[in-house]
Amino acid sequence: MGWGDLGAFGEPSKETPNLDQMASEGMLFLDFYTASPLCSPSRAALLTGRLPVRNGFYTTNAHARNAYTPQDVVGGIPDSELLLPELLKKAGYINKIIGKWHLGHRPQFHPLKHGFDEWFGSPNCHFGPYDNRALPNIPVYRDWEMIGRYYEDFKIDLKTGEANLTQIYLQEALDFISRQQASQQPFFLYWAIDATHAPVYASKHFLGSSQRGLYGDAVREIDDSIGKILKHLQKLGISENTFVFFTSDNGAALISAPKQGGSNGRFLCGKQTTFEGGMREPAIAWWPGHIPAGGVSHQLGNVMDLFTTSLSLAGLQPPSDRQIDGIDLLPAILQGKLIDRPIFYYRGNEMMAVRVGLYKAHYWTWSNSWEEYSKGIDFCPGQNVSGVTTHTQEEHTTLPLLFHLGRDPGEKYPLSFASDEYQGVMERISVVVQQHKETMVPGEPQLNVCDKAVMNWSPPGCEKLGKCLKPPKSDPKKCFWPH
Amino acid sequence: MGWGDLGAFGEPSKETPNLDQMASEGMLFLDFYTASPLCSPSRAALLTGRLPVRNGFYTTNAHARNAYTPQDVVGGIPDSELLLPELLKKAGYINKIIGKWHLGHRPQFHPLKHGFDEWFGSPNCHFGPYDNRALPNIPVYRDWEMIGRYYEDFKIDLKTGEANLTQIYLQEALDFISRQQASQQPFFLYWAIDATHAPVYASKHFLGSSQRGLYGDAVREIDDSIGKILKHLQKLGISENTFVFFTSDNGAALISAPKQGGSNGRFLCGKQTTFEGGMREPAIAWWPGHIPAGGVSHQLGNVMDLFTTSLSLAGLQPPSDRQIDGIDLLPAILQGKLIDRPIFYYRGNEMMAVRVGLYKAHYWTWSNSWEEYSKGIDFCPGQNVSGVTTHTQEEHTTLPLLFHLGRDPGEKYPLSFASDEYQGVMERISVVVQQHKETMVPGEPQLNVCDKAVMNWSPPGCEKLGKCLKPPKSDPKKCFWPH
Repeated sequence: MGWGDLGAFGEPSKETPNLDQMASEGMLFLDFYTASPLCSPSRAALLTGRLPVRNGFYTTNAHARNAYTPQDVVGGIPDSELLLPELLKKAGYINKIIGKWHLGHRPQFHPLKHGFDEWFGSPNCHFGPYDNRALPNIPVYRDWEMIGRYYEDFKIDLKTGEANLTQIYLQEALDFISRQQASQQPFFLYWAIDATHAPVYASKHFLGSSQRGLYGDAVREIDDSIGKILKHLQKLGISENTFVFFTSDNGAALISAPKQGGSNGRFLCGKQTTFEGGMREPAIAWWPGHIPAGGVSHQLGNVMDLFTTSLSLAGLQPPSDRQIDGIDLLPAILQGKLIDRPIFYYRGNEMMAVRVGLYKAHYWTWSNSWEEYSKGIDFCPGQNVSGVTTHTQEEHTTLPLLFHLGRDPGEKYPLSFASDEYQGVMERISVVVQQHKETMVPGEPQLNVCDKAVMNWSPPGCEKLGKCLKPPKSDPKKCFWPH
Repeated sequence: MGWGDLGAFGEPSKETPNLDQMASEGMLFLDFYTASPLCSPSRAALLTGRLPVRNGFYTTNAHARNAYTPQDVVGGIPDSELLLPELLKKAGYINKIIGKWHLGHRPQFHPLKHGFDEWFGSPNCHFGPYDNRALPNIPVYRDWEMIGRYYEDFKIDLKTGEANLTQIYLQEALDFISRQQASQQPFFLYWAIDATHAPVYASKHFLGSSQRGLYGDAVREIDDSIGKILKHLQKLGISENTFVFFTSDNGAALISAPKQGGSNGRFLCGKQTTFEGGMREPAIAWWPGHIPAGGVSHQLGNVMDLFTTSLSLAGLQPPSDRQIDGIDLLPAILQGKLIDRPIFYYRGNEMMAVRVGLYKAHYWTWSNSWEEYSKGIDFCPGQNVSGVTTHTQEEHTTLPLLFHLGRDPGEKYPLSFASDEYQGVMERISVVVQQHKETMVPGEPQLNVCDKAVMNWSPPGCEKLGKCLKPPKSDPKKCFWPH
């Protein structure tokens, strides 16, 4: 989902009454970011509070590539990483993930081995084509075992776009919340739905309900679901005791537009890129009785902050034996403070750009290769900023391209290298970048090796369902990451 | 000002608390348009309820050109046109214009000859360079006589951007409202400020107050002023008896970006073009106790509707002896109804495009000429949609380019000509266009002839101030309209 997909963020159809109301009752974050322009690394960062280059969710197979966890990837979240639910457990929290895990699908990466107590959802994304021959259909798990597969037992009609998955995920959420409230146990619910990921789907009731086509239908269903979750919290009388945060894991995938693509508002490009459209996200914090209603924050935020902020809410300290990139947002949320901190934009292990205050400096620019672009793969459709949305990897490390995101949110007008403003700002930014690079200890890259043998051929539980498939012989290879 | 310039419309700095509050107390129009991508024709349409091609505010000097009223234009609003204040007078209204008139500056076009009772402001725009030799500085009038000139008596510091004009215009508005309330007379106030027109200015208090630079400072000052006007109405106890509408006369001028240009959100291109960015506007209706708070309307609206709607509010009928293009929006505003009506996008006397429902068909496309573009004049900076943002005038009258503005607000993906959707929709649209063209009776074009002798050399009152300048000999020529 992109920054511009909600009514509160200026989507011209304004079809998200529940999220807009959540914003008007809570706090809107206008400068909130993902940790990566792609899903898996972003989710790994959210749960570890650490940049993907630290927690291993990146590749070094080629320069500055986005990588994720398709079925044949061998890696996943390392045991050495401490995930938010592992830490919350110490404070008595019951933790559940509903939806897409995406931190590795081999047995050692199972969410219940990394702090979650319950899981309902899938290890990988629901897109295909899957045929159970070259690529097995993605399994859906309940806790330790699979209970079916997408397209087989959990239908997604690619022709009509109909699927009732969001409804199932919603029911799971409501049930879990009810159970926790009844047992009076504190809980962490990671509601990681994926309805706006292509192939986009919505349940029958929402099909055709949006001006925006199927993508809008999916957004409406998510909006409606979140409204139901918030009302459920209120009905159970625990809303003033429950912190809720809404955001997304990367910008809207403009390659899926116009039928299945969302909106990054007026920002440049989309998913897969380190321009604002790829990484700036809609974000709303909600906690009645604590967060002043109708608040708006310009705090530079990041999904990694949800790690540290959640620990803070639970009265816990973040681990001190490792670098944590997420900061505690509570002073910004509860007292309206502005905490000075940079935002780093990575592709693989390359720091492409950094934001400090209202300024953003690009050290590398790249949309995608000419080769891909010539095949019609366009991460910036209808947009073309000369020397910025480049189709070759352009290095600007000696003279970074500098933008003022207040005057120029669309990254169209680099500041003149000769200007006093450029000189003064780059002096400040250089210190930040130097410090960041000097103290950077990259983790072991997890997304370098692929092997068809590790796919979801025979997930635990498959035998009970008669759904075990025979894996091919192991043949590990370097994964190919085109962009 | 552009569609994307207000917080309520998704401007990422969210610096318009007063207009956002006006929206939350009133009704937000998401699909509201100007009658022209340029100022004068749009303002003439607002006050006459008629398309510029009918009321004469267009040129036929070349094909599909935007024209306005610079100082040397000979034409202006014809006596045969009936302006909103002329009609409101019949219902006892006192009418005042504050700010930019732009409907002609020669004596016969004076606003007090066209229904206004009071005027404080200028006949033309404040931009320059004016030198009192080739181009006289623009006069500022109080009612019948000039009381000074821009840059001389009404300072605009082009270096710092400082000017307290908006404050003067605000004070005029507050005073007028107080007087009308005291005398218990119904009033029509046309508050036609121009602070966001380049060269952009703001008063000292607002300079540097915005994340967005000088343009944002100007927006903040306008926002603050509107907040003060609304509070004034409330303080005087007449807010429930006063209908207020906020909108602009064309999309943001992207050629002035990033320092002095606004935002059209995610829409294509800007001022001067018939893409959405050139003509879709922020629009808010406010009338406490009558308009449901927090309303959002998808009614296709147009500045011309303010003519008909205002008459309706005053209990008057629109003239029946001529074609009126504006519709009465009260059913949309008060009862949430959706009235079926098309939006026409004109450049000169050429209908470039039409919107019917969520579909927009382009019969002609043009941004500007290659010649201008090569000089750096770019109405679509950073945007380039192949075959759409064309630099030659492209005719599509046999196979119009069709867009679905719900799925594709950015006009990036024309529908396939072969699709059923295209065929079905174009059948509907063709009927609308045919009817429109068949019944179109263009007015006498007012913006064809220019003559330096008609400039503001010696406006009435200049002799009292010693500010009369000697006009050159009359030498009428065809005006040159480059785009």
